[in-house]
Amino acid sequence: MISALDWIGDAPTGFLRLLDQTRLPEEHVHLDCHDVPTLWQAIKRLSVRGAPAIGIAAAYGCVLAARAGGPGLGPGADHLATSRPTAVNLFWALDRMRRVPSPTPQALLQEARAIHEEDRAMCRAIGEHAFAALQQISAWNPSGDRRILTHCNAGALATGGIGTATAPIYVAHERGLRPRVFADETRPLLQGGRLTAYELARAGVEVTLICDSMAAQVMREGRVAAVITGADRIAANGDAANKIGTYGLAVLAQHHRVPFLVAAPSTTFDLTCPDALSIPIEQRDAAEVTHPLGRCAAPRGVSVYNPAFDVTPAALITALVTERGVIQPVSREAVAQHLA
Amino acid sequence: MISALDWIGDAPTGFLRLLDQTRLPEEHVHLDCHDVPTLWQAIKRLSVRGAPAIGIAAAYGCVLAARAGGPGLGPGADHLATSRPTAVNLFWALDRMRRVPSPTPQALLQEARAIHEEDRAMCRAIGEHAFAALQQISAWNPSGDRRILTHCNAGALATGGIGTATAPIYVAHERGLRPRVFADETRPLLQGGRLTAYELARAGVEVTLICDSMAAQVMREGRVAAVITGADRIAANGDAANKIGTYGLAVLAQHHRVPFLVAAPSTTFDLTCPDALSIPIEQRDAAEVTHPLGRCAAPRGVSVYNPAFDVTPAALITALVTERGVIQPVSREAVAQHLA
Repeated sequence: MISALDWIGDAPTGFLRLLDQTRLPEEHVHLDCHDVPTLWQAIKRLSVRGAPAIGIAAAYGCVLAARAGGPGLGPGADHLATSRPTAVNLFWALDRMRRVPSPTPQALLQEARAIHEEDRAMCRAIGEHAFAALQQISAWNPSGDRRILTHCNAGALATGGIGTATAPIYVAHERGLRPRVFADETRPLLQGGRLTAYELARAGVEVTLICDSMAAQVMREGRVAAVITGADRIAANGDAANKIGTYGLAVLAQHHRVPFLVAAPSTTFDLTCPDALSIPIEQRDAAEVTHPLGRCAAPRGVSVYNPAFDVTPAALITALVTERGVIQPVSREAVAQHLA
Repeated sequence: MISALDWIGDAPTGFLRLLDQTRLPEEHVHLDCHDVPTLWQAIKRLSVRGAPAIGIAAAYGCVLAARAGGPGLGPGADHLATSRPTAVNLFWALDRMRRVPSPTPQALLQEARAIHEEDRAMCRAIGEHAFAALQQISAWNPSGDRRILTHCNAGALATGGIGTATAPIYVAHERGLRPRVFADETRPLLQGGRLTAYELARAGVEVTLICDSMAAQVMREGRVAAVITGADRIAANGDAANKIGTYGLAVLAQHHRVPFLVAAPSTTFDLTCPDALSIPIEQRDAAEVTHPLGRCAAPRGVSVYNPAFDVTPAALITALVTERGVIQPVSREAVAQHLA
């Protein structure tokens, strides 16, 4: 099993070892962070990405910050908060680290390890619940020919454990079953090929890469048992914001009567959002579309529409899975009860 | 208006000028073919592509072949047939050229020009019929905010005229209306960005490039008046094979109540195919998926599924448009009547 990040050694002299995700899939190279500036750059450059993994990295970063001296956790912790200004988990982890009563490197490392371990356990619990739900809801046979289809990377590389959307796949694999997966490549940034196919193949899971536009065809051929994705934010009524392309997949799944599951930590729910309409959709740089992997694929100056996310309405989601269990059918009431 | 190919000069000394589509979108460079080997390479290398354009290029190539001497059109014409062994229009054009009674370069040029002109007229007729149909079926306002969405390239670059799917857009543009277009980038080969966005932008049409996975979102936002694509083959019942991703678009269009049109010459119908099941789907090289524009985006040796086409069932097609007119609703009987 691949690991996105690990603390190596003790608190006074140890360091944070990241798998440098900017080098994937061509090179499997670690980036060792012995100080805050190195880690700040690593987060900024997306060497470590995925909301849970960023939070854990920042928590370990506080050990590095405290070692560098200064009041409290030192100025390093504040600096880390500026590395990915929209990453909610980053702020959450730093806030929690700031609340460590006696912030010695030793105490901070203990807290960071606790955050990491909680994330690992959360992924594991999602995996167990989703593994059961997939078989119940979709009649998925984890050793059968029909595959799980996933989009983007909600995998081990995004978390401190076995991922969220990938978690039931790893659970099946660990039990000696032979789960088979379709990974959408996920334009524009191609996380499906670079990250999801990479981590699954490395773990020995049978994965087949497809372009996003091929998902409809493999569903039509009856080769998809269920679709499972992660989520970036889930509204109080169950509408789920996730990587662009998720919504279209959900429409296609409904058309082909393929169950559509969303797996995410319960902290992904934002009850201040009543529904999809209150989730703003970030527009990203045109170059992501016009220059895949840096190569020119469009005329100079062409207009581009590049929404980072879309929102899948609750009505298209067969079940939401968190570390607490399964929400099915998805409704405002069921969400409230689940989180109570 | 861009031109994929033109004969320059007279029969004894002239040459075929191709827009080298392998250099697009970065460079607008012509490739002048004075002999058969140069043209053979150009077809092979996809400097000219699109079924109608290949047929026209091969027809002009017969002038070059005859000039080189040998019996009939010379061995050059037979050689041209090997450049794209699955291109039906290529064989069709060569057969027609072989039937020229007295195959002098002059007579052959006249026949090639006739083939070119017929294709140009066919595109024009499709454009007029589709322009009317789009307004009637979809309430498309050619000067309005809601856009036409197209997939892959069934444009001027694929034909001897204004394309097929793009034809109504060019018709609207020529009339001083301001049609607006979404071009799907069309993975894996990115013809939407490299070719369709290029030719529309060059003609002054307002085009916005999106990734294939964004089509659902722009439909959901109510920004799409209609979808129009080309077709590679249409079965007797109206099922249409086209570039991978077309079928998924048709499902999404139905879900969002967006009319879905297919525009193609009447020669695209293959009445020996009763329906979609009898249309074989070619699998293409994994590298197209794993290495977009040559850059590595997937782990070494990963499994890939890369169907070149998919088939859109007639039930999802609002109307078929040919140079003869509009088939709506689409049924086996309506197709038979249209072609009678």
